[in-house]
Amino acid sequence: GNETSAAAAAARQDQLTKPTGSLGQLEALAVWLARWQGQAVPRLDDVSVIVFAGNHGVTAQGVSPYPAAVTAQMVANYARGGAAINQLATLAQAKLTVVPLDLDRPTADFTGAPAMDVAQFLDAVNAGYDAVPARCALLALGEMGIGNTTAAAAIAAALLGGDAASWVGRGAGIGDDGLRLKQEVVDMALARHRAVLGDPLAVAMSLGGRELAAILGATVAARRHGIPVLLDGFVCTAAVLPLLKLNADALSHCQAAHVSAEAGHRALLAAMKLNPLLDLGMRLGEASGAAAAILLLRAAVACHAGMATFAEAGVAERSGP
Amino acid sequence: GNETSAAAAAARQDQLTKPTGSLGQLEALAVWLARWQGQAVPRLDDVSVIVFAGNHGVTAQGVSPYPAAVTAQMVANYARGGAAINQLATLAQAKLTVVPLDLDRPTADFTGAPAMDVAQFLDAVNAGYDAVPARCALLALGEMGIGNTTAAAAIAAALLGGDAASWVGRGAGIGDDGLRLKQEVVDMALARHRAVLGDPLAVAMSLGGRELAAILGATVAARRHGIPVLLDGFVCTAAVLPLLKLNADALSHCQAAHVSAEAGHRALLAAMKLNPLLDLGMRLGEASGAAAAILLLRAAVACHAGMATFAEAGVAERSGP
Repeated sequence: GNETSAAAAAARQDQLTKPTGSLGQLEALAVWLARWQGQAVPRLDDVSVIVFAGNHGVTAQGVSPYPAAVTAQMVANYARGGAAINQLATLAQAKLTVVPLDLDRPTADFTGAPAMDVAQFLDAVNAGYDAVPARCALLALGEMGIGNTTAAAAIAAALLGGDAASWVGRGAGIGDDGLRLKQEVVDMALARHRAVLGDPLAVAMSLGGRELAAILGATVAARRHGIPVLLDGFVCTAAVLPLLKLNADALSHCQAAHVSAEAGHRALLAAMKLNPLLDLGMRLGEASGAAAAILLLRAAVACHAGMATFAEAGVAERSGP
Repeated sequence: GNETSAAAAAARQDQLTKPTGSLGQLEALAVWLARWQGQAVPRLDDVSVIVFAGNHGVTAQGVSPYPAAVTAQMVANYARGGAAINQLATLAQAKLTVVPLDLDRPTADFTGAPAMDVAQFLDAVNAGYDAVPARCALLALGEMGIGNTTAAAAIAAALLGGDAASWVGRGAGIGDDGLRLKQEVVDMALARHRAVLGDPLAVAMSLGGRELAAILGATVAARRHGIPVLLDGFVCTAAVLPLLKLNADALSHCQAAHVSAEAGHRALLAAMKLNPLLDLGMRLGEASGAAAAILLLRAAVACHAGMATFAEAGVAERSGP
């Protein structure tokens, strides 16, 4: 991050025609964008949304109310412009890219084997890394993959502790029996892979999925290129948890776009010291919460760049008690 | 509200390519707009933001860190396009109207007399009523007035009980001594007007201000015309509290845009059973939070109107547990 740009942005905020701090997080977001864009007045000319999609062998355990075929069907829906993320990306004036990752080759059912071998894991990480443009003003990340809230819960439990019940939620809307089954599946997976639970990347490989690995790779690429990142919901947040475990500063170029309705997300964000921008009870994934949060960043930049200073406007500054 | 339109909108939501309920409040907002616009697929073609401005005799007590002249200076800033609300209304594609209300004639200092007499109060209410266009898709309301968080706290305390300390906040940023003074001022005002505290409109007249009265009038006009309303922060919420006290259903065409950082706002919203859309620590007023929330309503409408249904997209519906 560029602290000179951040300090210049903060100084500008204090000169704008409003009480200091009165735009709340919109001020902090402008400063954060300035820090990562390396300019005192950040811009949002080219914003990218990338949705990674993967399939999961663990769906064989019955952890989702939807058939695994829906992953590819939704990718086709994105291509035709029919999904929520298409509408939200258009509204946010962001370019949407969807990256399907070997959808016809699901990961292994991680109750019995590592989800991916090393080569598969690195392929997915690299696909994520390579999907990030070398230059863009802001990157919003999201995912699609039937079964992937099970993988996300397993990663959270593996790296943060607590039993499966603390992290497993209803995902796309599983019922009570399904929820108990999903918890059992995660507990089985944790037992199966207990030898690697201390190794964040081995956890990502063994309990994750291709789209989670790609999000991890894309987050590293964005940091390398100095691109600020908006993380979507529970799955996206769990996908980058291994990075935070490896380096406490690894996510300072990231903002949590929202806290979702998925059961474990609020606790996951708190454990990762991420402060979500929105709390709208969303739980769709596909970068929908991140795209909604782009709108708030546009609001932050519009105020930061467009407002008059006290001097320019001839407005008196504070004088009283 | 049109329950047929609302039911049709809810039925459409259940057919869109996403798990039922997974867009959270964005779904509820689409249904709410459908109810008040009277159409199953709401539109946001013409959105209006109205900012009412007034001056307050109680500023003589030293309740604000800014001189009262700032009210008119900020109105001039709005006219030149230099304020936060200018940037936010432009971003939200909303028409901004600013209505200054007798700025050279402040209300009376309500520690000693009613803020307004009946004629002044009704003039302000009518100015608000008349400012609302007969047709618009959505109306965002806000205010500017040095000293008006003192009036808002007085109204909240008068109509909801609790002492001044429960409702008085730092407004534009008053210090600790100023905060204690402001609490004393509100307690003085409550004692001075204790005879009318059971009468919501008398409270609005005696402890309020012209811009608060105008917001009350505009909210009534919007209900009359069937226009959904976004309420801004603490002052705007307190301004419509008298309507809720008169009729428990009076604000069902209104959404609280955000919960502000002003101390009493969260408790005020809770007491009024209003669920804020945003929680960004904003405390600027001038409809800034309401304008930011327009962006969320645009997101809700974009998804509702633009998404494909399961049948259209050939995506499988839920089948599993």
